[in-house]
Amino acid sequence: MTKESTTIDVGEPSTVTKSSSHVVKKKGFVAAAAGGGAKRGLAIFDFLLRLAAIGITIGAASVMYTAEETLPFFTQFLQFQAGYDDLPAFQYFVIAVAIVASYLVLSLPFSIVTIVRPLAVAPRLILLIFDTLVVTLNTSAAAAAASIVYLAHNGNQSTNWLPICQQFGDFCQNVSTAVVAASIAILFFIVLIIISAIALKRH
Amino acid sequence: MTKESTTIDVGEPSTVTKSSSHVVKKKGFVAAAAGGGAKRGLAIFDFLLRLAAIGITIGAASVMYTAEETLPFFTQFLQFQAGYDDLPAFQYFVIAVAIVASYLVLSLPFSIVTIVRPLAVAPRLILLIFDTLVVTLNTSAAAAAASIVYLAHNGNQSTNWLPICQQFGDFCQNVSTAVVAASIAILFFIVLIIISAIALKRH
Repeated sequence: MTKESTTIDVGEPSTVTKSSSHVVKKKGFVAAAAGGGAKRGLAIFDFLLRLAAIGITIGAASVMYTAEETLPFFTQFLQFQAGYDDLPAFQYFVIAVAIVASYLVLSLPFSIVTIVRPLAVAPRLILLIFDTLVVTLNTSAAAAAASIVYLAHNGNQSTNWLPICQQFGDFCQNVSTAVVAASIAILFFIVLIIISAIALKRH
Repeated sequence: MTKESTTIDVGEPSTVTKSSSHVVKKKGFVAAAAGGGAKRGLAIFDFLLRLAAIGITIGAASVMYTAEETLPFFTQFLQFQAGYDDLPAFQYFVIAVAIVASYLVLSLPFSIVTIVRPLAVAPRLILLIFDTLVVTLNTSAAAAAASIVYLAHNGNQSTNWLPICQQFGDFCQNVSTAVVAASIAILFFIVLIIISAIALKRH
């Protein structure tokens, strides 16, 4: 079922005596080879998207990890220093996005297998299932951090949570950048899942 | 390609004179019918999961929407009343989860089509793509709200955001319930996507 290459034996006298079902079988092979070409293109696109997603998730995790700002003064409410480890949502972000980046690196061999064997079902299915699990991890990290970033920017009157971005402007900007990068990674994952679904479907 | 029933004409004299490719074709139909049976089972499971997910998302959105608590007193920092509309993350949760529930209702006809025609590719692909989009919406709503719920329970020393759950215990409990329900819906979506992937794959 997963053969993507076909050797056509032309000019052999024995083929004349073979039944018409042999010809039907060959047509099937040729169609599979053509489908394999389109699917190989998808598989290469999948591989490139994964490389881009690795870059953007490593970038997001490291920008968040290194985001900190030390003030030359302190007020009644605020500490001297703000760092990612002051807020649990940002700690979760760093850990979750680092896991996502690691997964993406580990998924590259499977992506290469789908380039070499575009019609193989198992690696595609494995990629789709794990991409689905990991996109929820990535989305939860981005949304949890975004929720806190929004609060840091705007504060909340009802609960008397004061905005901290007036004091820690650079910190907030770095953290926001990390959240935007992780959100772009979500889009990449959605495209990766759709690619896998299209590659899985029957002709 | 999408025929799932086959009528086997036995005992007809004309079949004897037909070529062997006819037999091959019939075998293909029988195999497709067997695959169709397994896929119909998957499709029915998909439909039931969607019904359960509708229930849980409507429950989550309405628990969050109705969560409010009025205190008989007020302090320096806190208002008389806490409601979902005091916090933007909870407003986003209500809107996003309501959209997810609406999508699930609209997806039921497509799920029914996959029960009637288990080998049809188009409805499966549509369901998989939109399930993927909607699971990120659902996850972002749950994570953004969870982030604020955590803050409401524990507060944050570094930013001087005080916990509000001591005062608004019932409100916090309702909101937490809604977040847990939305998180269960994420699991349902992951199973739905895996079902679609398995149903899409070639035999």
